[in-house]
Amino acid sequence: MPVNRKCIIRLSRYKNALQRLKALGFVKVFSDNLADAAGATPSQVRKDFSLFGITGNRRGGYVVDELIEQLREILGKNETQKVVLAGVGNIGRALMRYEGFGGGGISILAAFDIDPAKFDENADIPILPLERMHDFISENDVKIGILSVPDVAAQQVSELMQAAGIKGILNFAPIQLRGDDGAIINSINLEVELENLIYFVNAAKKGVKE
Amino acid sequence: MPVNRKCIIRLSRYKNALQRLKALGFVKVFSDNLADAAGATPSQVRKDFSLFGITGNRRGGYVVDELIEQLREILGKNETQKVVLAGVGNIGRALMRYEGFGGGGISILAAFDIDPAKFDENADIPILPLERMHDFISENDVKIGILSVPDVAAQQVSELMQAAGIKGILNFAPIQLRGDDGAIINSINLEVELENLIYFVNAAKKGVKE
Repeated sequence: MPVNRKCIIRLSRYKNALQRLKALGFVKVFSDNLADAAGATPSQVRKDFSLFGITGNRRGGYVVDELIEQLREILGKNETQKVVLAGVGNIGRALMRYEGFGGGGISILAAFDIDPAKFDENADIPILPLERMHDFISENDVKIGILSVPDVAAQQVSELMQAAGIKGILNFAPIQLRGDDGAIINSINLEVELENLIYFVNAAKKGVKE
Repeated sequence: MPVNRKCIIRLSRYKNALQRLKALGFVKVFSDNLADAAGATPSQVRKDFSLFGITGNRRGGYVVDELIEQLREILGKNETQKVVLAGVGNIGRALMRYEGFGGGGISILAAFDIDPAKFDENADIPILPLERMHDFISENDVKIGILSVPDVAAQQVSELMQAAGIKGILNFAPIQLRGDDGAIINSINLEVELENLIYFVNAAKKGVKE
């Protein structure tokens, strides 16, 4: 059975749920607890775990600490994951300040922009000229990039990232990017997400059943 | 054939691509053009359109202006969609300033927070005390909410929204929310998205083929 995107998303959710349960004092959990917390079914939880060789104990469940450790290992969270960001606009700045990343072993090493007014070499996350992105990425062996530039610049900056060695891009520009064969591009389009919600809310309101 | 989430996401993408093509001077397009711009196949484009009774002309293609209009109508974009936001942190502020919404007929009427230092009744998007959210939602007949509060507050604020009449929530808190039967909750979890990318980039690097 192949490991797909949805499976890995569930693993992240289990890990996050476990960290919350741990904070509440849980020492052991059962697949039912995790299913509730992560919005999956108990059999799905067990299937996901068995795929990665994680086994529980029918009577005793899973040991929270061990399970967190195993999930972090699978998700590559036991080493800090280096990330660069391009485009220091509203979304870019929010991501640079996003607390969920730091706690989760994700470190934005630097951000890049074309606006000199934004440059700040001494900030916690330095903001550097876009021309320096290529060398920075290759010198620091960064593989993951966040793209939060305006849509007209997105394809070009995405190509700059890939040419420098970036293998995975999280794209916030509302545009379909063409990646080369080696890179993975995941897009989050905020407007599309909202439109989607609006469509289904309106459809339900009208009683449309299509 | 049921209208599913993915189909509506594609319609949004077609619309956005069409608006870009229109800006470039296109008057007519073919399903192949749209497929390229939206990352779908031409037959998928035609199937999606026929589902909503949109027909092209085999030789002439689709008229860009008409098609934009039809898609906007389907997506409920011909009337302004009223939205409230709860949680004026980094992500919340970025969303309040997000230009993609305004241009797309989505209007954030007000934002709510519990921190008095953030209140600003006279801002373009007023920032009001959370206690006023219930009345604001019902008085303005708002159906869509954006939730960008910390995770510990998310379930509670989501329930407040639903109790006031919100039927669709776009949730940025990294937690699985339990909705009541009538509401749709879509979540964007930034950390999970990045973890996902990291997993697959690392898997490709190791040559893992699972």
